[in-house]
Amino acid sequence: MLRRDFISLSTRTTGVALAAGPLASQMIAATPGVKPMGTALMGLGNYATRQLAKAFKETQNCHLAGVVSGDPEKAKRWSVEHGFAESNIYNYDNFDSIATNSDIDIVYIVLPNAMHLEFIERAAKAGKHVICEKPMTVTAEESRRAIKACRDAGVQLSVGYRLHFDPNYRALMLARGEPDFGDVRYVQADMGFPIGDPTQWRLRKNLAGGGAMYDVGVYCTQSARFFAGEEPIAVTAQEFKTDPMKFAEVDETIMFQLEFPGGATANCTTTYAFRTNSVHVAYQKGWGALSPAHSYGPIVGVLKDKQLAPRKFSQQALQMDDFVRCIHAGVESEVSGLEGLKDALVVDAIYRSIASGSKRTRVEPV
Amino acid sequence: MLRRDFISLSTRTTGVALAAGPLASQMIAATPGVKPMGTALMGLGNYATRQLAKAFKETQNCHLAGVVSGDPEKAKRWSVEHGFAESNIYNYDNFDSIATNSDIDIVYIVLPNAMHLEFIERAAKAGKHVICEKPMTVTAEESRRAIKACRDAGVQLSVGYRLHFDPNYRALMLARGEPDFGDVRYVQADMGFPIGDPTQWRLRKNLAGGGAMYDVGVYCTQSARFFAGEEPIAVTAQEFKTDPMKFAEVDETIMFQLEFPGGATANCTTTYAFRTNSVHVAYQKGWGALSPAHSYGPIVGVLKDKQLAPRKFSQQALQMDDFVRCIHAGVESEVSGLEGLKDALVVDAIYRSIASGSKRTRVEPV
Repeated sequence: MLRRDFISLSTRTTGVALAAGPLASQMIAATPGVKPMGTALMGLGNYATRQLAKAFKETQNCHLAGVVSGDPEKAKRWSVEHGFAESNIYNYDNFDSIATNSDIDIVYIVLPNAMHLEFIERAAKAGKHVICEKPMTVTAEESRRAIKACRDAGVQLSVGYRLHFDPNYRALMLARGEPDFGDVRYVQADMGFPIGDPTQWRLRKNLAGGGAMYDVGVYCTQSARFFAGEEPIAVTAQEFKTDPMKFAEVDETIMFQLEFPGGATANCTTTYAFRTNSVHVAYQKGWGALSPAHSYGPIVGVLKDKQLAPRKFSQQALQMDDFVRCIHAGVESEVSGLEGLKDALVVDAIYRSIASGSKRTRVEPV
Repeated sequence: MLRRDFISLSTRTTGVALAAGPLASQMIAATPGVKPMGTALMGLGNYATRQLAKAFKETQNCHLAGVVSGDPEKAKRWSVEHGFAESNIYNYDNFDSIATNSDIDIVYIVLPNAMHLEFIERAAKAGKHVICEKPMTVTAEESRRAIKACRDAGVQLSVGYRLHFDPNYRALMLARGEPDFGDVRYVQADMGFPIGDPTQWRLRKNLAGGGAMYDVGVYCTQSARFFAGEEPIAVTAQEFKTDPMKFAEVDETIMFQLEFPGGATANCTTTYAFRTNSVHVAYQKGWGALSPAHSYGPIVGVLKDKQLAPRKFSQQALQMDDFVRCIHAGVESEVSGLEGLKDALVVDAIYRSIASGSKRTRVEPV
């Protein structure tokens, strides 16, 4: 499915292939005879347990070969359930010794945001390819360091932007530029949920880096950039807080408006205070909409009066398998570290706009 | 349908009936033995031709009894098609003589926005009840004058907010406060379309008063206020323009964020540059969404996993019939002039925010 999609996209966008860079190279990359790669999962919290464990049962190009955890008991249970050697269990202290473990090709980081950079750098130094959960880092400056660390070590870096691999989400991007649709003029993208446990790491600035904006707001920056197909040049942002106690350290609700060089705009809302999860894309001709837009699936929606059929598969399995194909082919993933940096540049500008009293603020270029 | 809805709403909201004012009185108003009222349609443009002519074929409490038009030929065709006397045809010069015409109880104004106030005042002076298309006027100050003119003349004033009478649109409002839903925390509301003919009155400031914000932006202020159930206290707004030639006089795209006293927020986009037409309401528990949200129908959507069945009827017919019931009962319509004023206050604040460089701006109270 994805492969066909890439091929059709590649054929369709030949004219912009050079501009698209990594995306284009990936699309024309061959993927025969891929040797499955061993992946070590770092951080065995909710996302690892509820999403990635399942995903590894569907992956074709990689398998769960180890874990990194501060909880030896939990790690042991994973080794039994997923059938890997106990010698492939690491903790955060002895993690660097993973360098000599030939079972492990990739480290998948699922830690609190503020810890991402440290472990991207350590994994790279250990010679392992890296998938890092979003947001890749908590500032653009950190993203640049993460990219440099991986480049210097000769390993690949990818962000867990699973939605790029969802056919229904992707369908709205693929419509862009088609004769029946034309350019994208507008993206509305919302993502938020009412956060529960007030003691969780997501509400601590030293662990999360920020609030809803980091955690789920990057779904909105992703959607805006992915569907617009350009990098925003300016942003205006507003912050709202209804529970200053709970959100003493991090942002609760942020709305932001993006301006793209071709004249397209985006309007987005992200929050820890209420449930919202939708995308609307206005093309020159017609529109598409997804609701829910950013969930683990099925992504449900409509594209120019055509209902998008719900599909069952693991977005994360597709994402991981694609990363392995990219490593084998020696091309950058469509969701490489550069994607993480581009979102971080937008998030940085959003925080600057808020600090300025919602002034229109320039997004720094890559 | 609507009657049952009102009754159930009335029963449900007994506790807030006094606060709701006109709405509450309307809901408990009896509607037996309504004598059908004659309505004169002023302005025979697209909306009158494509929507209201049809609607009059469904109304039970009123009928098309005359027209006001600058085009005598067109007016005559309407009199033939709708079976009213040629003596019930008026133009804008002799309009005031309608005062002595006992066939006409109501004047329905469908003129360019900037002409609304003049003809609300003249219709009121002629002793006729008034329905005025949205936006009621182009400033809050004008709205106050419109309300005063009708009050002084002892006639009723209503705005053409047809969506209040659409069961699916209304369903998302009725859910508010129900045990399964709780308060509204957020409203996302978009309305816009790519405007065609560059010579039309909607693009001339002296006729339209403003651009997309006036014409279709009031759908967004309406949705935000209707679903939140409160009046916003502050607004932040941004203007974007991609075609400065076409939109030399009026606004093209405006996004705005509303803050309600109970902590709910809204994020809205209105435009003449692209097609967008959606609502998302986040309650304390669950959510509802409409897409299209603001069309003539059917309004399609979902409310807490329940698909809202598309229904066929004329929103405008329900709106007009309800107005006649209100006149007979001597109670204010739910969509009275006060609703027009409240939206105008928000629109005024939006323009002030834009003029200030997107600063957070207070919405003046009624």
